[in-house]
Amino acid sequence: MSEAPLSTRRQMRLGAFVQELGHHIAAWRRDDATHHGYDLQHYVEIARIAERGRFDMLFFGDSLGFQYPEDEALGRTSRVLRPDPLTVLAALVPVTQHIGLVATASTSFIPPYLLARQFATLDHLSGGRAGWNIVTSTSDTEAWNMGLAGLPEHDERYRIAEEFMQVAKGLWDSWEDDAFVADKATGRYFDPAKLHVLGHEGHYFRSRGPLNAPRPVQGYPVLIQAGSSSAGGQFAARHAEVIFAAQQSIEHARQFLAETRVRVAAVGRDPAQVLVMPGVMPVVGQSRAHAQERVEQQQALIQDDIGWALLKRHIGGFDLSHLPADAPVPELPPTQGNLSRQRLLLEAARAEGLTVGQLFRRVAGTRGHWLVAGTAQDVADELQAHFEAEAADGFNIMAPWLPGSLSDFVEGVVPVLQQRGLFRTQYTHTSLRGHLGLSRPAHPSPRPFSQRSAQAAA
Amino acid sequence: MSEAPLSTRRQMRLGAFVQELGHHIAAWRRDDATHHGYDLQHYVEIARIAERGRFDMLFFGDSLGFQYPEDEALGRTSRVLRPDPLTVLAALVPVTQHIGLVATASTSFIPPYLLARQFATLDHLSGGRAGWNIVTSTSDTEAWNMGLAGLPEHDERYRIAEEFMQVAKGLWDSWEDDAFVADKATGRYFDPAKLHVLGHEGHYFRSRGPLNAPRPVQGYPVLIQAGSSSAGGQFAARHAEVIFAAQQSIEHARQFLAETRVRVAAVGRDPAQVLVMPGVMPVVGQSRAHAQERVEQQQALIQDDIGWALLKRHIGGFDLSHLPADAPVPELPPTQGNLSRQRLLLEAARAEGLTVGQLFRRVAGTRGHWLVAGTAQDVADELQAHFEAEAADGFNIMAPWLPGSLSDFVEGVVPVLQQRGLFRTQYTHTSLRGHLGLSRPAHPSPRPFSQRSAQAAA
Repeated sequence: MSEAPLSTRRQMRLGAFVQELGHHIAAWRRDDATHHGYDLQHYVEIARIAERGRFDMLFFGDSLGFQYPEDEALGRTSRVLRPDPLTVLAALVPVTQHIGLVATASTSFIPPYLLARQFATLDHLSGGRAGWNIVTSTSDTEAWNMGLAGLPEHDERYRIAEEFMQVAKGLWDSWEDDAFVADKATGRYFDPAKLHVLGHEGHYFRSRGPLNAPRPVQGYPVLIQAGSSSAGGQFAARHAEVIFAAQQSIEHARQFLAETRVRVAAVGRDPAQVLVMPGVMPVVGQSRAHAQERVEQQQALIQDDIGWALLKRHIGGFDLSHLPADAPVPELPPTQGNLSRQRLLLEAARAEGLTVGQLFRRVAGTRGHWLVAGTAQDVADELQAHFEAEAADGFNIMAPWLPGSLSDFVEGVVPVLQQRGLFRTQYTHTSLRGHLGLSRPAHPSPRPFSQRSAQAAA
Repeated sequence: MSEAPLSTRRQMRLGAFVQELGHHIAAWRRDDATHHGYDLQHYVEIARIAERGRFDMLFFGDSLGFQYPEDEALGRTSRVLRPDPLTVLAALVPVTQHIGLVATASTSFIPPYLLARQFATLDHLSGGRAGWNIVTSTSDTEAWNMGLAGLPEHDERYRIAEEFMQVAKGLWDSWEDDAFVADKATGRYFDPAKLHVLGHEGHYFRSRGPLNAPRPVQGYPVLIQAGSSSAGGQFAARHAEVIFAAQQSIEHARQFLAETRVRVAAVGRDPAQVLVMPGVMPVVGQSRAHAQERVEQQQALIQDDIGWALLKRHIGGFDLSHLPADAPVPELPPTQGNLSRQRLLLEAARAEGLTVGQLFRRVAGTRGHWLVAGTAQDVADELQAHFEAEAADGFNIMAPWLPGSLSDFVEGVVPVLQQRGLFRTQYTHTSLRGHLGLSRPAHPSPRPFSQRSAQAAA
């Protein structure tokens, strides 16, 4: 353990990753699940718990649609409902004071002007608390809903995302920070020399601008990304300020963080301005046995048919539901799709001697994320070990059921982290950038409107 | 005046039409203008005033961009800033309890799935208070920002809007009202027979569905429209439940309302389920002279260069700024564009013997809307006369400066209307449909998922 005095110790960042009723597939079946995913009061409660825990941010996932489970499992999941995250986060602005408000939004389907404006609005209304988790979407379902015949292929999605960021940043920079003088006496509302017309005409997008929003309080909302593919990693190196990672072992996580810093430096950015925050699913108990019991009770709520359906999706389409649940995991040939993830999963299952029933419960329960079960001290120890090994700058807490298991974390683990000087006891900033220690991007260009208007005229 | 007892009297509806600092172009120059258009506290104050006045709804306009004023006026208007209305209204949910929350959104640029989901989310979070003012947009500026080379022509915009509504309603009907059973014991979250996959493949849009939102609390958000063109009128007859009109004289307004009811009946809808609410800009004073003085003080804040620029835009591009402000309005040849509006404006100006300076102040001050200045009694009399002549079902109050002149209306005029039994003294419903007396649309189709899935598969 580090011997640095508490006051100067490097501190971890914490996000509360919100997924409706919880990250566990069967969270809705718990006795204490009293809300549904479109219930504002549910999110108000979550937000208050996270803010009481001095979290850096609320982090909302998103999907513009859902994949049908197999026919036999149809009707067995609450995952078919997901509210628009920007709308929910806007509604949380007046009931929170400090916590960052991060919405996931895809660059694959939405006009950049609209998204740039909605994030600018959220950032202004919240006094600088907005963040954007940039995704490119992963399912044809979303593409079909949003007007495409199918999802563009992986690397093209990142080329689209790259151009999207160019447009979004250009629109946020439509006005210099001090463009609005609002001089009532002279009747001058803004300084025309501080207006910048983007005039973007690219391969995937066109947008003239300017945005009808002042530059966001934070310059840009905090930019967050999860890509761990090659294209995703390059994209993150260029744009991300927070990277939401899914690595599990401390060694893999250390390696990922070190590689990320190299990639960031290679594109000329300051590696200290990029935070890596893996997802972790905590289950806190009064004892280790109690925590384990809670995990098992939760796992027992997974029904076989939804378990088989999710397993099939995770192992490349093989239906194993004809096997008894206590059969050993069989050898399977590789398939198309996410080969490495599929192979890792099956190899791990065979190495541990799992039955297919145990495997589908693992898949359904954690979706491959890092589960930490134990006492509050145990969980704090585990996070501290990763943090101090430079395997993480902080963690995105994926409460398996909400709000209960987030509350357990805040009441149990956060005070331990605070006592150890590893986490803030009070908010010391008002913006999400402030909480995270990220600098505010300067306006890039002093070119006045008059020099750009000709080029921008359509 | 009607002799019906107060308790059974037909009552008017009131909307608070919010435009940032007010509908008057120079509202920002007032001494009491202390907020800017991206300031949440400003809208919280407006919302509280309107709810104290028992208004049916807050009604937010929108534009996805702005038209530049002429070069010499550049910098002289606050109209370059406009926040995303859905985001602002979501932030008002927790600080209001009853009032309807209406956002303007265009059908010309945004994927229907996204908009349908944002409105569904707002309706759920607010417990059934969402409304959508459907517009097709009117400026190339918006098209350029949103990725098009220019705005589709007028009638095509309405064909796009028509198909948009088909998709949006189909997506809102993705689930029957009682689809979600959430039976924890059996593990059934929803009834697959109550899931409806839209599978829309049309001329302008495709969207498979289902929406990942339960059917809105109100079935659909209240649908509002302002179209007074032929295509707009037909569209409104098919879809609108509230029509935001701009007619001024009582005779024109009566005629418009009567024609609207005929058009609505002709498409098989109940005319009683469509409310016509003209916009009105009230200026309330302690005396008529005081009200007139307030109008003149406000008008005096309009600067000549922005006045000339707006006049030029309203009369078909003619620059009259070489004339002295006290010159009579000259004869001008007709031009392209909105001919009838231009001709009406010029004819009225010459009939009244206005100077060009008086004309541009009128254009800049009210944008052709109905200005009513006087004591609280005067304003109430005027509204009552229109209301009882069946020239209006209610009014959309366009406060010239905000929040001050809305507050004047609520403190002064609303109590008079209430004393006369013309307006509610308490909210009696929880949804916007309830306030307006509009029925909830029934789910149109009992066809189960299994009969539609083949057709819907992409």
